[in-house]
Amino acid sequence: MFFIELKVRDYECDQQDVVNNSVYMNYLQHARHEFGDTVGLNWVDLCSKGINLMVRRAELDYRHFLRSGDTVRITAEPGRKGKFKLFFKQKIIRIPEETVVLEAMIHVACVVDGKPAAPDILDEWFGPVS
Amino acid sequence: MFFIELKVRDYECDQQDVVNNSVYMNYLQHARHEFGDTVGLNWVDLCSKGINLMVRRAELDYRHFLRSGDTVRITAEPGRKGKFKLFFKQKIIRIPEETVVLEAMIHVACVVDGKPAAPDILDEWFGPVS
Amino acid sequence: MFFIELKVRDYECDQQDVVNNSVYMNYLQHARHEFGDTVGLNWVDLCSKGINLMVRRAELDYRHFLRSGDTVRITAEPGRKGKFKLFFKQKIIRIPEETVVLEAMIHVACVVDGKPAAPDILDEWFGPVS
Amino acid sequence: MFFIELKVRDYECDQQDVVNNSVYMNYLQHARHEFGDTVGLNWVDLCSKGINLMVRRAELDYRHFLRSGDTVRITAEPGRKGKFKLFFKQKIIRIPEETVVLEAMIHVACVVDGKPAAPDILDEWFGPVS
Repeated sequence: MFFIELKVRDYECDQQDVVNNSVYMNYLQHARHEFGDTVGLNWVDLCSKGINLMVRRAELDYRHFLRSGDTVRITAEPGRKGKFKLFFKQKIIRIPEETVVLEAMIHVACVVDGKPAAPDILDEWFGPVS
Repeated sequence: MFFIELKVRDYECDQQDVVNNSVYMNYLQHARHEFGDTVGLNWVDLCSKGINLMVRRAELDYRHFLRSGDTVRITAEPGRKGKFKLFFKQKIIRIPEETVVLEAMIHVACVVDGKPAAPDILDEWFGPVS
Repeated sequence: MFFIELKVRDYECDQQDVVNNSVYMNYLQHARHEFGDTVGLNWVDLCSKGINLMVRRAELDYRHFLRSGDTVRITAEPGRKGKFKLFFKQKIIRIPEETVVLEAMIHVACVVDGKPAAPDILDEWFGPVS
Repeated sequence: MFFIELKVRDYECDQQDVVNNSVYMNYLQHARHEFGDTVGLNWVDLCSKGINLMVRRAELDYRHFLRSGDTVRITAEPGRKGKFKLFFKQKIIRIPEETVVLEAMIHVACVVDGKPAAPDILDEWFGPVS
């Protein structure tokens, strides 16, 4: 399964001395975009071709917090239901203890010319239509 | 229902020329904290007393996007199921067109001394236990 | 002199319980862009016409800190030396006490087609060449 | 000289398709804090002991921009003039081309109990008083 690893940066922590809730969205997006690069689908390139991948629903389960100095693994597991229902299962795991910090389900829509679309290129990313 | 209004700032927009997904979490948190102030429960004060309100699950439905210059209303409607299940229903609405941009359900836990707690002070915020 | 007013948002504060240093750059940019709008020079529109205003040097003097709940006035006073040297003098002032929190000098360059330029439209913003 | 390396994340880019000016402040802070760790002076630990290192002036010269996918080296070279004048010379360099993207001079003050201070522990970080 695809993953990246990164270290919490102090400016990402808030007055509760933990990584602010919104920063998890940054981490998850970064992992998804890095995943795209590994399968030859650069997110910025896609946008410039008019193929827009957009988050349409995010479900985030916060299990633990992250503190200054923590290191995490962020996973991105793509999936697909039918032609248009694309999603990523993602986890943020504090390492080396392997503590699950966040579990997420990110539902994505592909939009071309303002309409839902499923160009073949998505097969590289999310697998073929099942 | 409680709400705040604010204008999108250019630095909140990303390469897709829309407000980045993570910024909605900032907007929602800001509205919840401002709501707290109106009922005499300052979030920072609560933390300093060891009463920590934490997001444990967030469900975000992105309906439309926001662009540079847009103005929004952000609502925060608290609710409660039993003693410990606290939540906020929230919406981000682009004005003056009244376009619903985001609908969110933010599930919150109150933690005191590392354990789930329901101090009376929460009644001010989320209503009495039903 | 042009100014905007805004209230500190909790997510802008870091582990020292003050607004993080980087956020001042956000505040200053926001004030400059809002100023642009008042003289008919929308920053995003300018970019889309290939007229890029870029910060080339920033000098920031931090005098005091900002805390959760503080309200500030942010000024933006444009200036010009010769054809190409454009700048903004800016201040962040905590109100109502009128405490100067930050003084800044933001030197700006206008770039068109990758080269320094001084289209007439800049006169609206920075005044005529002196 | 101390340095860290990191890759630009897409969410750090703005509508001009470049890393937003404010993000450089994040990068610089992160490099300074990482430097602290290497000499046994964790920034968060210092704060909790009441030893506050604060930026009092920042001078940032923006030489080039950074785009999605760029990788950078960020340096942090500490210095000192007399007992109280502490600073960091910092650079952000795009690699592998070795393009200087930003040069910065970050002047820092140490504050203990609300007053300028120079505890011995600072010698580890900035060198002895010269």
